[in-house]
Amino acid sequence: MIKRGLTLVNAMHITASVFINDDERGLHADYEEWLEGLAPHEPVGKYRHNRTGEDNADAHMKRQVMGREVVVAVTDGRLDFGPWEQIFYGEFDGRRRKRVLVKIIGEQVATDHGSPPR
Amino acid sequence: MIKRGLTLVNAMHITASVFINDDERGLHADYEEWLEGLAPHEPVGKYRHNRTGEDNADAHMKRQVMGREVVVAVTDGRLDFGPWEQIFYGEFDGRRRKRVLVKIIGEQVATDHGSPPR
Amino acid sequence: MIKRGLTLVNAMHITASVFINDDERGLHADYEEWLEGLAPHEPVGKYRHNRTGEDNADAHMKRQVMGREVVVAVTDGRLDFGPWEQIFYGEFDGRRRKRVLVKIIGEQVATDHGSPPR
Repeated sequence: MIKRGLTLVNAMHITASVFINDDERGLHADYEEWLEGLAPHEPVGKYRHNRTGEDNADAHMKRQVMGREVVVAVTDGRLDFGPWEQIFYGEFDGRRRKRVLVKIIGEQVATDHGSPPR
Repeated sequence: MIKRGLTLVNAMHITASVFINDDERGLHADYEEWLEGLAPHEPVGKYRHNRTGEDNADAHMKRQVMGREVVVAVTDGRLDFGPWEQIFYGEFDGRRRKRVLVKIIGEQVATDHGSPPR
Repeated sequence: MIKRGLTLVNAMHITASVFINDDERGLHADYEEWLEGLAPHEPVGKYRHNRTGEDNADAHMKRQVMGREVVVAVTDGRLDFGPWEQIFYGEFDGRRRKRVLVKIIGEQVATDHGSPPR
């Protein structure tokens, strides 16, 4: 068990985000629409990156707005979340396997896994 | 004292941000105006999230632009700041008690708290 | 060598960013153009911050979109990168010396620096 530490959670793909916000379906639909306004997918030809043969330049921008990673404190083996905080993975290109890295560091405390429940 | 470590500072509310920038009043007013342009509060009906009875969908967006958290290095008990870096809390909905989590991890060095000043 | 840890990389200037994305020249040109659309440099008089005698308010905004810092996991002495992840420094004002802070924390493993190659 980690008594006191930090947890890093990051997207491993550069068109994706890991972010913390509300678990509310309407909000997530709002995010999609809002991000599309800030960095429209079309016309794909307006982005230089898309001359490489890809069409996902907009996804690289959306990911910067939403962020690559979150760092969350750990106390006594639990993530220190605020009342509505939840971790989400957002993929803005949509054509890859999702891969998330989770790294936990901190002071470990020996736990007695073998003891029977009392 | 922490000899070498990291400090996490994060907002505990999902319509708020912790960010590092300049302590200049004009800039902070600029941020407010700029964020209002990127994610306008009105018309509140254009956001699906607001159908839940809230009217703060825009605040959830503003918080993503400004970020949830900062991580700052610690050396010999002090935050490693650049020349103008300061930590700010931004609340974009404005109706909640501010709550910030601060977590410091690293190698601790024993300090002699009991010694009298010389 | 760090067996298991975290690396913080942050810009020390508040008009600059450290971010992780693709090493593709077209994409970086797209970022510049996109950020200029989100926070135009001109007219400089529209930003209150610029009344201080500076003309870089837009750079303070661009930096918030792209982020101040990244945190990257370390395992067995290596950064845990996804397949295309690379760390970049972006300066949006352009008039300062670049300064980046790198802080690595974690469990150290003794390495035998003295042994000759076999």
